[in-house]
Amino acid sequence: MKKVESAEIICVGTEILLGEIVNTNAAFLSRELAAMGICVYHQEVVGDNPNRLADAYKAALERCDLVIMTGGLGPTCDDLTKETVCKVLGKKLILDEASLERIKDYFKTIGKEMTENNVKQALIPEGGSAIFNVCGTAPGIAVEVDGKITMLLPGPPNEVIPMFTYQVVPYLEKYCEECIVSHNLNIIGMGESKVESILKSIMLSSSNPTVAPYAKYGECRVRITARAHSREEAESLCSNMTNIIRATEVGDYIYGTDVNNIEESLIKALIAFNKTVAAAESCTGGLIAKRLTDIPGSSAAFKSGVISYCNEIKHSLLNVSKESIDKYTEVSYVVAMEMARGVRINLGADIGISTTGYAGPGGGTEKDPVGTVYVAISTKDGESFKRLSYSSLRDRVFIREAAATEAMLLALKSLEK
Amino acid sequence: MKKVESAEIICVGTEILLGEIVNTNAAFLSRELAAMGICVYHQEVVGDNPNRLADAYKAALERCDLVIMTGGLGPTCDDLTKETVCKVLGKKLILDEASLERIKDYFKTIGKEMTENNVKQALIPEGGSAIFNVCGTAPGIAVEVDGKITMLLPGPPNEVIPMFTYQVVPYLEKYCEECIVSHNLNIIGMGESKVESILKSIMLSSSNPTVAPYAKYGECRVRITARAHSREEAESLCSNMTNIIRATEVGDYIYGTDVNNIEESLIKALIAFNKTVAAAESCTGGLIAKRLTDIPGSSAAFKSGVISYCNEIKHSLLNVSKESIDKYTEVSYVVAMEMARGVRINLGADIGISTTGYAGPGGGTEKDPVGTVYVAISTKDGESFKRLSYSSLRDRVFIREAAATEAMLLALKSLEK
Repeated sequence: MKKVESAEIICVGTEILLGEIVNTNAAFLSRELAAMGICVYHQEVVGDNPNRLADAYKAALERCDLVIMTGGLGPTCDDLTKETVCKVLGKKLILDEASLERIKDYFKTIGKEMTENNVKQALIPEGGSAIFNVCGTAPGIAVEVDGKITMLLPGPPNEVIPMFTYQVVPYLEKYCEECIVSHNLNIIGMGESKVESILKSIMLSSSNPTVAPYAKYGECRVRITARAHSREEAESLCSNMTNIIRATEVGDYIYGTDVNNIEESLIKALIAFNKTVAAAESCTGGLIAKRLTDIPGSSAAFKSGVISYCNEIKHSLLNVSKESIDKYTEVSYVVAMEMARGVRINLGADIGISTTGYAGPGGGTEKDPVGTVYVAISTKDGESFKRLSYSSLRDRVFIREAAATEAMLLALKSLEK
Repeated sequence: MKKVESAEIICVGTEILLGEIVNTNAAFLSRELAAMGICVYHQEVVGDNPNRLADAYKAALERCDLVIMTGGLGPTCDDLTKETVCKVLGKKLILDEASLERIKDYFKTIGKEMTENNVKQALIPEGGSAIFNVCGTAPGIAVEVDGKITMLLPGPPNEVIPMFTYQVVPYLEKYCEECIVSHNLNIIGMGESKVESILKSIMLSSSNPTVAPYAKYGECRVRITARAHSREEAESLCSNMTNIIRATEVGDYIYGTDVNNIEESLIKALIAFNKTVAAAESCTGGLIAKRLTDIPGSSAAFKSGVISYCNEIKHSLLNVSKESIDKYTEVSYVVAMEMARGVRINLGADIGISTTGYAGPGGGTEKDPVGTVYVAISTKDGESFKRLSYSSLRDRVFIREAAATEAMLLALKSLEK
């Protein structure tokens, strides 16, 4: 069996060429393929035009081992990906009975009538295999011709992501001759470039596992991906690399492994410890509450919050003393701590979280310029704060997101003590 | 002068092929070009590899009138876009003194030392024109050969967007022989598909101006784009079309023109009327506060907020009566109105906004299933509420964003009365 080393991605859809939607599928697929050790050399977008699609497909087939296409598998006459692929490969479309049954079941489940044009979605190129679509009607398709693999996936990202993760990856693993295992180390408090500079020599000297950092507003991830002949062996390679990274300076900033984000970790930990949290937000203006309540089921742990964008509210709802505001200003660790304590006591939570700072573009003082944020937490057993200082190159969105992240980390750490 | 009718976009960057960043430049450029009446037939991404880039560039030059490339204009040896374009076109790179001066000024402004490799950024293909970069160091470049235009833009979206909007559009207008004027009508409360079905016949019968709807979480936009020989004429075409659309059923749902979003409109209106707002959020959990405080300068109008994710807080901080909660449940118009009134009075604002509902996936009753949200506002002159009912196909993120949007619209309407 030929090894798959290179891939190209062709996304089909006039709506992408019109700029009506951003092509997140290409980014997702590229990242996942890179993690499997498969190089992506081109991403291409073409419209619902069979000639241009055929040209792009032929060029891609010549250049690489695997062509992944998304979109154009729908039931309407605009959807021409399968037909074009068949024409290029010289294959017929045949009805896949199992896929037709699944499409019928899908419509039964959502309580709608299946229309005749949905039968078109059960057609697959002869010799190809259908890939079950758990989130929609169009099955994916894998077809191999002359040692080249073509994979057709649906367009909507909420169908592409589960299909790729649970079905395409196991399918491709056969061609990688190896198992792929990936883990993410979640980091807060150290920027991507710092992480990269510390791990640079490890990244350069290790090709298996590969080590790659990614950044997202105040969070950073290090992805470790190992290939081996068995899953156990790959897991063991990842685990060894994790230990190596934990032993570096980066180790102090790792708050979790394979976690979606800090808010999910915090909500899970609160529920596990049977504790509740309340937030008093000044510069983050509701962002901590918003992110915590993004998590389904968060009402078990998040009680409530106060956004005290003005000093009167800090005083009236959070018991921040007027003297502290006068003496230290509202952007100070003293006020942050009083806010955290006040919200905890007044709202009857186990942990109070607070933020106060200058998110910009206006505001700031010489001592505490724009980019300075104090975050604090209060529990009945103790209180703590952290002064954050973001570069003047950072914008309001970054500063608010990053400060909210750091505040939630303080709360998570207090639970883990 | 040859008219520009078709374009292709080539984005250069290994980080895009690795899936580390999502290619938002391609979507932005495609949307803007479509608005100018220029068809985009391909978007392509290649890495920092001169041979693959040269192949992609040659193919694009053959197929269309305008090739726009982003990325690869940086100071390092990886950045090869200009060199590759020159090689394909058979041109030399020459130093552009004006660009070098601007780069020097840029470093002076940010207070950093210019390094020698930044001089490379001032090199442009002979016969080309440099395009001033207001947000970074790399100038853009326009070069015309054999009736084909090539435009090189930087990679970072915060540099691409202003450069395209303020410099590339006027440059290309010469080749469109016409002026392009675009306006957006902002709509809340009617979905994209409903808007499209009402405007379908107008959209199909009018090619100038073009009319196109776009959707975003509970908001919708109708973009009107006119081409004419003078700006006045184009404006007049847009204005006539606006009147036609306002006369349809869609008209009732238009809340603004060329507005970024409802939170910005609300903050601007509050400041104009010298009024303040406070929010009491249950199911939106801080999202209204977060969105209002996303707007720089919002502290002049947004006082504060309470997130009452539990009933005790609704009672203690917002004066919602226990009887109302018992009789109507916490998800009811009665509780929504009491929340809006309570937050207005207790937090000393002119307008109180509230939300209470089932954002899912859990919760809901037979009468008020998941997707039901009550939003309300209270002023000293009157109160109002709205019951929202989102389809079971909508997720938690959509329901929360859309409900926050509707609540802010209620507040905006109360100001306009």
